[in-house]
Amino acid sequence: MNFANLFHNEPNPRCYLAGETVIQAGEPHKEMLVLLDGEAEVLVGDRVVETEKPGSLFGEMALLGTREARATVRARTDISVAVVDERRFLFLVQQHPTFAIELMRLMADRLENMNRLIE
Amino acid sequence: MNFANLFHNEPNPRCYLAGETVIQAGEPHKEMLVLLDGEAEVLVGDRVVETEKPGSLFGEMALLGTREARATVRARTDISVAVVDERRFLFLVQQHPTFAIELMRLMADRLENMNRLIE
Repeated sequence: MNFANLFHNEPNPRCYLAGETVIQAGEPHKEMLVLLDGEAEVLVGDRVVETEKPGSLFGEMALLGTREARATVRARTDISVAVVDERRFLFLVQQHPTFAIELMRLMADRLENMNRLIE
Repeated sequence: MNFANLFHNEPNPRCYLAGETVIQAGEPHKEMLVLLDGEAEVLVGDRVVETEKPGSLFGEMALLGTREARATVRARTDISVAVVDERRFLFLVQQHPTFAIELMRLMADRLENMNRLIE
């Protein structure tokens, strides 16, 4: 599943201009964002650790637990994102079990990568 | 949610004697286990890294992605576990969205802990 497909008819995407900060590390955050168009960079401190393409998710950790952004996300090009708040997130999990499973797979992959980093 | 509650009427729990290996690191694995009774130890190499109580989950990473056990799990006391294969897992996610969400919260917590270890 490409998450961008699930949201391709998004009625109210939010747009950011190239260079704009989408999420600021350390600040309260409780939405999941799905990148629909363009590219975004994930920064830890001043270091770009990842460049994300359409279909990527941001902020799902904050939505699920921490309520605080762990990393900064910046628009690398002009981008549009679907905004998923907690209510919509719960609805998605209920209505689209494959969404829940794909998200868990994504998290499992991230944990796996973390494991490798630690080993 | 305590995962043990969701499985307290488990019709066919699997039992292990104290000292028995439940999951062997590096071996193929594709079930999620829910500890119902007793205590289990998680080992990385020969080192016990965690002692788990009823309600704990094991093997969910293998079910979701790697298909291979990352850590060894050993019964510390006599234990019983509920066995959740992929089919039942998909059913649970569909029928109990709160199960999916709690599992995601658990994974988010683990990722958060990993982040802290790496920082």
